[in-house]
Amino acid sequence: MTTPSQAADPVRIKRALISVSDKNGIVELATALHEQGVEILSTGGTYRLLSDHNIPAVEVSDYTGFPEMMAGRVKTLHPKVHGGILGRRGVDDQTMAEHDIHAIDMVVVNLYPFESTVADPDCSLADAIENIDIGGPTMVRAAAKNHAAVTIVVNTADYGPLLEEMRANDGCTRHRTRFDLAVKAYEHTAAYDGAIANYFGRLVPGGNETFARTFNTQLRKAQDMRYGENPHQQAAFYTEPRPQPASVAAARQLQGKALSFNNVADTDAALETVKLFERPACVIVKHANPCGVAEAADLGSAYERAYATDPESAFGGIIAFNRALDAETAAAIVERQFVEVIIAPGVSDAAIAAVSAKKNVRLLSCGDWSAGQPGGFDHGFNDGFDYKRVNGGLLVQERDLGMKTAADLQIVTRRRPAPEQIEDLLFAWKVAKMVKSNAIVYARDKQTVGVGAGQMSRVNSARIAAIKAEHAGLEVRGSVMASDAFFPFRDGIDNAAAAGISAIIQPGGSMRDEETITAADEHDIAMVFTGMRHFRH
Amino acid sequence: MTTPSQAADPVRIKRALISVSDKNGIVELATALHEQGVEILSTGGTYRLLSDHNIPAVEVSDYTGFPEMMAGRVKTLHPKVHGGILGRRGVDDQTMAEHDIHAIDMVVVNLYPFESTVADPDCSLADAIENIDIGGPTMVRAAAKNHAAVTIVVNTADYGPLLEEMRANDGCTRHRTRFDLAVKAYEHTAAYDGAIANYFGRLVPGGNETFARTFNTQLRKAQDMRYGENPHQQAAFYTEPRPQPASVAAARQLQGKALSFNNVADTDAALETVKLFERPACVIVKHANPCGVAEAADLGSAYERAYATDPESAFGGIIAFNRALDAETAAAIVERQFVEVIIAPGVSDAAIAAVSAKKNVRLLSCGDWSAGQPGGFDHGFNDGFDYKRVNGGLLVQERDLGMKTAADLQIVTRRRPAPEQIEDLLFAWKVAKMVKSNAIVYARDKQTVGVGAGQMSRVNSARIAAIKAEHAGLEVRGSVMASDAFFPFRDGIDNAAAAGISAIIQPGGSMRDEETITAADEHDIAMVFTGMRHFRH
Repeated sequence: MTTPSQAADPVRIKRALISVSDKNGIVELATALHEQGVEILSTGGTYRLLSDHNIPAVEVSDYTGFPEMMAGRVKTLHPKVHGGILGRRGVDDQTMAEHDIHAIDMVVVNLYPFESTVADPDCSLADAIENIDIGGPTMVRAAAKNHAAVTIVVNTADYGPLLEEMRANDGCTRHRTRFDLAVKAYEHTAAYDGAIANYFGRLVPGGNETFARTFNTQLRKAQDMRYGENPHQQAAFYTEPRPQPASVAAARQLQGKALSFNNVADTDAALETVKLFERPACVIVKHANPCGVAEAADLGSAYERAYATDPESAFGGIIAFNRALDAETAAAIVERQFVEVIIAPGVSDAAIAAVSAKKNVRLLSCGDWSAGQPGGFDHGFNDGFDYKRVNGGLLVQERDLGMKTAADLQIVTRRRPAPEQIEDLLFAWKVAKMVKSNAIVYARDKQTVGVGAGQMSRVNSARIAAIKAEHAGLEVRGSVMASDAFFPFRDGIDNAAAAGISAIIQPGGSMRDEETITAADEHDIAMVFTGMRHFRH
Repeated sequence: MTTPSQAADPVRIKRALISVSDKNGIVELATALHEQGVEILSTGGTYRLLSDHNIPAVEVSDYTGFPEMMAGRVKTLHPKVHGGILGRRGVDDQTMAEHDIHAIDMVVVNLYPFESTVADPDCSLADAIENIDIGGPTMVRAAAKNHAAVTIVVNTADYGPLLEEMRANDGCTRHRTRFDLAVKAYEHTAAYDGAIANYFGRLVPGGNETFARTFNTQLRKAQDMRYGENPHQQAAFYTEPRPQPASVAAARQLQGKALSFNNVADTDAALETVKLFERPACVIVKHANPCGVAEAADLGSAYERAYATDPESAFGGIIAFNRALDAETAAAIVERQFVEVIIAPGVSDAAIAAVSAKKNVRLLSCGDWSAGQPGGFDHGFNDGFDYKRVNGGLLVQERDLGMKTAADLQIVTRRRPAPEQIEDLLFAWKVAKMVKSNAIVYARDKQTVGVGAGQMSRVNSARIAAIKAEHAGLEVRGSVMASDAFFPFRDGIDNAAAAGISAIIQPGGSMRDEETITAADEHDIAMVFTGMRHFRH
């Protein structure tokens, strides 16, 4: 592939066609174009708006000699418009003259916002269909194709820079600008038809209410990365047009090196985990797993307690908080340990200053999240789905936003958990949800005591949790245990009892639930079922 | 949102506009339409083809009174064409009559294949631009919008069913068919403009050679799933238009229940792992990790040896082979263990019969893969990229297709590995690449002896590998060890020596490499560096 040709550079704008749905800034743009001697063609509502502001414009129907018809369905689909856009300057000039086709050098068009129209739950199918723009995308695509001669503008944010360029270049646009705008145009039409396919694709054979027949998405590059998961893999980070607030995608970096691929992934894991807690909490993530989690009266204590779970793993970790970071906690972190990323809903100026002692530490502020879990998704691009890539395909699922509260728990043993045990059980359950499966979490007093992650058998995860608790010098006796899925056999309960576990939370649902309940009763352990599994791989 | 209205159902086809790039089957379709009394409008090459076959057709230019011009850039962009497509029947009839606009009831258009054009490395930017279709997508989108009255056909595969429907319905199409075809039309244009945005988006600010400014993709639903990673999450499996051969997406299911979300993910992991081996090999995956891998003289022995690594985890596992599955091996599996999925490049009839004793076992045949790794990607939709989803965004990276051979290894210790140790080291290295990080793999005689997966510290992964070896009753002494990333400290080497490890493979590259090399020398262990890391999370 060759690079863009500069052959037609620059092009003087003599005639512009303006037809916009989003009228922000259009009067200012049209005024400035008029002042530069540009003739303006326009249609319908845009024409009326310009007339109201005494900006001279020619109605497209006067130019084509063909009326707007069918309630606006057909107004610009005419060879005098499209010949004016698509005509190859220097090649088709005679043809254009023969047919009284005037060259159109600039097209300013944006499309009716299909996505926001159908986001209204009262939007009928007929409304949705009526709001599919036909003439607009055609002009956008035609102008983009002929960007050698034509400037296509689909984004109000481009008005200002464009006028500046014209003022600085004697009313001309440069080829590189036209090419850039042309690509934006196809990005715009791709997103537009993708949203249409996503919306209607739920109503046809192969589609259903949640998953359309085809999966269409468009994301915008936020950052090229030095490399991916490993140095021999190239990578980039793309974000949704409207990322959820308080997500890693929406976070603002306050200092430090650029985030790496693994940084972004781990920061996401840490942040989404810490969001599950209501009291001041700290989550330390390493290799995609929480290696220490704690709640406390304040962030400083929460960090101390999270760190204590596994100081070895915390080295080089990602640390997330659910309250604004204070200077004392910030200083305690950077003075004690090597840390890759710190993220919090806010960061005080004094905390920024404290972290600045370590220039490389990536410090992020993500803003507050509303109480409870992030939720909901639409069927456009910002779909809220979770993906898992496989060779040749994509597994698409709803995010795991499920969470149980104390009221949902089913006590299945003779011994009932004490109120403080219930709190610890729910604490451990939240952590287990975010630990890679099979996940076993030991916890006490809202502090992880041992995290058994990512094993192919549940009994090994339990073994690791115990090893890690021992390694950290934390007392297991009296701790509670969470398991992200049910225990298939009673051995998991027997081992827990031997380790000194006092209460257990797990989904239940095994064919052998009776066996595990009997085991718990024999050991006088309290056990509760959630009825909800949290595999995470 | 309401369901599709049936108001305009059914519609008799009296006039069809045919203008196709892919001319397969078009003569047959046009002939059949003509025989049903349909008047045909056509353009350019399609018109000439129909004329050559004596199929009466009206050239669009004769209908519009406006010539094709600008080398075909403008031929159908005319109100007589688009009024004929978009006119609301029963509403705009008088307008249509006034302007001599004839209702067009069917549009058969397919677009110039932009993707295959730009896939040619010699394609110039000018060629690419010239091959962007403007008139075609406009007709497709207009006809799809007015599907209440118009039948839009973009896919040659729809010709046959459509003609059948017309024959069975007195020359009419039903609303549900027109709606379905309309959605296909927008899927087609979304993919088309997405490919354009992906291609040109590499040449603009924000884009680079590998990653375009926006990430556009379209995948097609292959399967709705009962649920996702957990029962409270809805899920579906989408596949690429042209999935890699011998991928889970391209595999054919021979028997058993439908694949679940976790089945697809684990089958992918098992298959991609077994592809790394050249001799007969078996990989057993559980919870996204290989829990047993072995090479042997035949598949049956490979399975026995893979199973022996971790019989506990192999229960309910996913099993992949790199040779056609024979009856004996198939029988050995289903007689011994609960297995979720078996996948192999081929399956003999006798093996199918052997597995059929267990009706629920999912048996898949994926076809042969070419020697070596799958490789390459284009910049269209089948991009070969790996994704990691985070809240609000998507990490996109090249797949980890890197692999070292014996010639690449750097021997860093006084002791040189023996030839059979080199083979075991490379065997363990391949497995470590596919185990979740931190990954430590013990292996001997092309058999995994212990797999330490998914830990937040490398030393814990090593500890797990040793525990698992002990648990399986396999001898660690004399085994080799692979680590997916470098050892940050010498303790990993000291522990390995204590366990009886005789040779080590790791990327190297730590600040403390000298320390680990000294440790290996002290223990008289052979150690090699690959210079390539294989994190996988």
